[in-house]
Amino acid sequence: MPDQTTDGRPVLGLDADDTLWENEARFAAAEGRFCDLTAPWADRERASVALLAADRVAVARYGYGVKGFVLSMIRTAVQLSDGAVSSSEITEIMALGDEILDAPLEVLPGVRDTLEKLAVDHSLLVVTKGDITDQMAKVDASGLADLFWQVEVVGEKDEATYRMVLARHGINPATFTMVGNSVVSDVLPVLALGGRAIHVPHHTTWELEVADPQALDGIEFPVLETITDVPALLADWA
Amino acid sequence: MPDQTTDGRPVLGLDADDTLWENEARFAAAEGRFCDLTAPWADRERASVALLAADRVAVARYGYGVKGFVLSMIRTAVQLSDGAVSSSEITEIMALGDEILDAPLEVLPGVRDTLEKLAVDHSLLVVTKGDITDQMAKVDASGLADLFWQVEVVGEKDEATYRMVLARHGINPATFTMVGNSVVSDVLPVLALGGRAIHVPHHTTWELEVADPQALDGIEFPVLETITDVPALLADWA
Repeated sequence: MPDQTTDGRPVLGLDADDTLWENEARFAAAEGRFCDLTAPWADRERASVALLAADRVAVARYGYGVKGFVLSMIRTAVQLSDGAVSSSEITEIMALGDEILDAPLEVLPGVRDTLEKLAVDHSLLVVTKGDITDQMAKVDASGLADLFWQVEVVGEKDEATYRMVLARHGINPATFTMVGNSVVSDVLPVLALGGRAIHVPHHTTWELEVADPQALDGIEFPVLETITDVPALLADWA
Repeated sequence: MPDQTTDGRPVLGLDADDTLWENEARFAAAEGRFCDLTAPWADRERASVALLAADRVAVARYGYGVKGFVLSMIRTAVQLSDGAVSSSEITEIMALGDEILDAPLEVLPGVRDTLEKLAVDHSLLVVTKGDITDQMAKVDASGLADLFWQVEVVGEKDEATYRMVLARHGINPATFTMVGNSVVSDVLPVLALGGRAIHVPHHTTWELEVADPQALDGIEFPVLETITDVPALLADWA
């Protein structure tokens, strides 16, 4: 089946946020402004810790993305201010969400050239999580859509989801390689399915994506400094 | 390609919310509670109209689903109260969102039996829009997942999206039939692609899903009172 669906070329999976373009930075900027806004009630560290705790709950409940993050900021502001936050401050918090959505998309250095090289002998499958509308808008804004064979916006990037996505496209996990900046979401679940994975760390990693050291025990995978090194590694493997 | 991906059976598309299970009712209940909450500042009709207007903007901006609806309710409460809404009322509004998510899923009468019949000689492809996490939770809670060949959670149900989904699965639009309660999302875009569509109206239709009468000019499609009539119609067509 892979032959029909991908013209016989192996499928290369690509994470999007913080692998192909900046994303965490959008959220970090909003978080900074949120800490300014809650400064009357809590110092920055306490505000950040409370926001992260709220977001951990929100992600499990509502899924990933900007909308859930805005709800977490509102909830945290109410909590930190002991209810004293005003409706105009709530409106400012909602505007922070809009700023995240409106931030110009910044494709990471070397990505376009690298994907053009990779697309010559791979079918490129983007696997990303978050709000569908926002994720698809970023794909459009990236100018990279013509290089992608398929884009899958999923709820969670765990083994079950990768199994479903690979089955949907008739891809044998043993022939699949995933590239991404998150060990938790891009590397471990794909290795568990018998695929290969390449870790390309980003300069910032969202705390909810930091792997438990125990989960890494005895597991090996290549770590590259930049996505531009991926074609050479794949050529080595071939 | 359809032969490989669906075992040679024709693909039947199914909308989910208000076609397979109640959904609009979850939102209507929350809206009723929202109108109670904003009663000090606006009568129910004004509150409903303002909420619909906010939601129209939110859907374009944030996509469909509960999270965007909660943000619309907060925005509308701030507006109707001229900023007087308290943080505890904002917290109540966020709780309305949780109530929507937590409402037990109510599969519509006859759905299970009908899908069992349809699945004998069709591959069932669910196409639904909304927050991925919520939509997938509903699929799980429905107990119908074993009958579905594929589930696609999309950002918008327009021609471009159907074209992408059908191409992804190697489905020829001329062999595709969609069943759903929304003329706008389930019928018109599929007919435009050369597929067939069956309209099964629900007792309530979200105002943003009501078709412009001009768009219906000269277009014909079957309207069934209940999904249980679908197998007989498909047998007629075959």
